[in-house]
Amino acid sequence: MTNTLVRITYDGTNYSGFQIQANAPTIQGELELALEVIYKRPIRITGAGRTDAGVHALGQYANFRAPFQIAAEQLPHALNAILPPDIVITEAREVSEEFHARFDARRKVYSYTVNRAIFPQVFRRFYSLHLPDPLNLAAIRKASKLFIGTHDFKAFQAAGNSTGDTVRTLYRLDVRGIPEKELLLFEFEGSGFLYRMVRLITGTLLQAGKGVLTLPDIEASLVGLNPAAVGPTVPAHGLCLEMVNYPQQDR
Amino acid sequence: MTNTLVRITYDGTNYSGFQIQANAPTIQGELELALEVIYKRPIRITGAGRTDAGVHALGQYANFRAPFQIAAEQLPHALNAILPPDIVITEAREVSEEFHARFDARRKVYSYTVNRAIFPQVFRRFYSLHLPDPLNLAAIRKASKLFIGTHDFKAFQAAGNSTGDTVRTLYRLDVRGIPEKELLLFEFEGSGFLYRMVRLITGTLLQAGKGVLTLPDIEASLVGLNPAAVGPTVPAHGLCLEMVNYPQQDR
Repeated sequence: MTNTLVRITYDGTNYSGFQIQANAPTIQGELELALEVIYKRPIRITGAGRTDAGVHALGQYANFRAPFQIAAEQLPHALNAILPPDIVITEAREVSEEFHARFDARRKVYSYTVNRAIFPQVFRRFYSLHLPDPLNLAAIRKASKLFIGTHDFKAFQAAGNSTGDTVRTLYRLDVRGIPEKELLLFEFEGSGFLYRMVRLITGTLLQAGKGVLTLPDIEASLVGLNPAAVGPTVPAHGLCLEMVNYPQQDR
Repeated sequence: MTNTLVRITYDGTNYSGFQIQANAPTIQGELELALEVIYKRPIRITGAGRTDAGVHALGQYANFRAPFQIAAEQLPHALNAILPPDIVITEAREVSEEFHARFDARRKVYSYTVNRAIFPQVFRRFYSLHLPDPLNLAAIRKASKLFIGTHDFKAFQAAGNSTGDTVRTLYRLDVRGIPEKELLLFEFEGSGFLYRMVRLITGTLLQAGKGVLTLPDIEASLVGLNPAAVGPTVPAHGLCLEMVNYPQQDR
């Protein structure tokens, strides 16, 4: 059995998320179907992490064990010929027997895109949150710095997920305006993310930008003293899993 | 009756083109429906030009005569609240009684986007032609210069359109590589365009880039001596009407 790692890009618009479900289209479901066509037997994949319904990815990863080997240069072409056009494999390679796409992930990068145009940009409507309201960018940048570092992000996870350890390290939280495209881009790089953590932090930062939340409000919420100063969860369609980094692999 | 000019942006993916048709969704049809809701009577619009099924626009224009006046700042919001999300009005203003969006158009700008990534970029699949094949950019640039200026573009129109005068002036034909996005962008600015002229010229330039057509081939086709050295017509979804310029209006 060879252990293969693939990089998956997808437009999440028409999927009920990454993780396989019985009666809904999912990224995992489509990919496992395509792998079964190629390998002539059921193949179970292990994703680097789940993404919610409507969330996109340019750098999702998954590994699987296959009964025979297909050249890494050929496999993406073979899979893309079977997969629907909104799921595209851009890379494949053999990894060690014990490699695990979730447990071995060291860092993940997520982006959240806000469209600041007065009227929504039609080509970006599935890939950004349209928010033309005035925002104080300086306040957003100041608030963003509070989240960088190692914190207990307990207040920044959605209900429904029973993670024991809620301490995570955020290495980077860039807030970048791209005026010529009327975009505001949030980029998160962290050791891992709690359920809906990126969308909750982004929602919190936007509230800071609107003047609804102050720096002390957010500082208090980060130490668990002000659970009301969190969120709201921004919509899924602005979120994209950009990259997963694995050790010794420069990714 | 006030004469109003609107700027229309649309994702053409789900439409049978700009011009109204009986049993198919069109941009004109949707816009006239929305105008009827607002003005409580049927309104006929005059577009700057037709676009084919699947073609997009960021700068289409149309004018119409309305029974009463709505403030130009309010009208786009009112229309966008009724229009489907893939059609967005970004501007409205009153124009003179005799203004005609088609006859008064002085210049039009079209773009054609080619996605050069090895594997198609999922977010761009509806807005660019995926063409990872090797291309000789220098040959494309040289060939592009042949088209600039005033020519009889008779050989560069699709059948089915009975235009008498086939002389047009192409002011600009930029060929721009955007390596960091793996895109190749063609930008056409001209006095007007024959039916499918942009897609036929783009197809011809891509053939030059593949080494299938030579400069002398294309020169001959431009003077009507080599009708075989034309095209093919590239697919609609890479094409976008970027802008229409009207006199005295700096647009």
